[in-house]
Amino acid sequence: MTPAPWSATILTLYPEMFPGLLGMSLSGDALARGTWALEARQIREHGIGRHRAVDDTPAGGGAGMVLRCDVLGAAIDAVASPGDTRPRLLMSPRGRPLTQARVRELAEGPGIVVVCGRFEGVDERVIAARGLEEVSIGDYILSGGEVAAFVAIDACVRLLPGVMGKAVSGDEESFEGGLLEYPHYTRPREWEGRAIPDILTGGNHGAIARWRREEAERITRERRPDLMGASKSHPTKA
Amino acid sequence: MTPAPWSATILTLYPEMFPGLLGMSLSGDALARGTWALEARQIREHGIGRHRAVDDTPAGGGAGMVLRCDVLGAAIDAVASPGDTRPRLLMSPRGRPLTQARVRELAEGPGIVVVCGRFEGVDERVIAARGLEEVSIGDYILSGGEVAAFVAIDACVRLLPGVMGKAVSGDEESFEGGLLEYPHYTRPREWEGRAIPDILTGGNHGAIARWRREEAERITRERRPDLMGASKSHPTKA
Repeated sequence: MTPAPWSATILTLYPEMFPGLLGMSLSGDALARGTWALEARQIREHGIGRHRAVDDTPAGGGAGMVLRCDVLGAAIDAVASPGDTRPRLLMSPRGRPLTQARVRELAEGPGIVVVCGRFEGVDERVIAARGLEEVSIGDYILSGGEVAAFVAIDACVRLLPGVMGKAVSGDEESFEGGLLEYPHYTRPREWEGRAIPDILTGGNHGAIARWRREEAERITRERRPDLMGASKSHPTKA
Repeated sequence: MTPAPWSATILTLYPEMFPGLLGMSLSGDALARGTWALEARQIREHGIGRHRAVDDTPAGGGAGMVLRCDVLGAAIDAVASPGDTRPRLLMSPRGRPLTQARVRELAEGPGIVVVCGRFEGVDERVIAARGLEEVSIGDYILSGGEVAAFVAIDACVRLLPGVMGKAVSGDEESFEGGLLEYPHYTRPREWEGRAIPDILTGGNHGAIARWRREEAERITRERRPDLMGASKSHPTKA
């Protein structure tokens, strides 16, 4: 018996956006092979009345529209049975930031249900009642949750067995060592008067590893001082 | 004379991924109206030799492949003339984190050139020689820079005049006030035994504004203590 594939279900007002780029390149090949499965469902199927309304004005006043709890609750119940143990993400700038550690947990599980917010927000009661995990992909505002759903799914799918080459594990270690990557160089040896640093072409592997470590620390200090305290003194890959 | 539209040029090994979801919904309508322009160009057009090679092994050893500086340099020169003042972004987990403030600057400018990394990385010399700004959309690893390019472009396009409704400015202020959004509610008044908080239906606008401010602070403290120090004591929108 083949194991059930890792399964992503998207709840969205724009199901036609999926699979989009997730159906191309390595993730698309893996989708075609059945390594993972993707289903995009229209929230509006559970809308109210003749016009299939999904939103209404915010209680207490204010701009924008709020996605109704009864509509979204019904949409979730229709795709996730009580026995479905997949985490339910709500993509939202209010969420906890997505991290590579959380991505790895999600990739090791059975899959995810992803709710794409639109409008002003989502009625708070359905977040509590259906156990939605609010996740933010970064401190900027998107036109909707669909772009964020692409990010979360792409990050998970590349970790599934057989999707990428074996370069993946190296990447992970480097990133999770709490340092940004050292600079990379390849042929040609000289270009527009700029040469590859001599140390990288000298063949001294110990010296190369030290140089890369120092460069990774320098770049991290310059760009992401917030990560320096979190460094677990892992070596970067060498 | 109509002003030149905001213009995004993507350099990628997967030009077929674009416009993708950027061609749908509000950003797609604005693209069709000419509010902005999108061009995706194949880096491989500038590849080396019969096989149009774009990458090579890293100097100094290690896993993965590195995008060549000569190939990427030629690809950039072909789309951005010396007089082209658009910022050139390289989507990379090594970059400085994308923020809403940077998104606003980019949206107010002439457009962006976006280089989508693949493989292990990009030869450092072309980053320096062509003034690429390394940008990270978050602390997780994607299969390539294309998904990150979608994020950057979507965040910019929604700020262009006429793309979204007028709810945008309110969103911005709230987010940039350094606090996450307070909880939203809408009809029905009661659902699965959960009621809208009385204060929101009581009609006392001062009390509603205070409650929202307190809830925004509580949620931010719980989920993003890192933002609390950065609060500029803006009111959230009420």
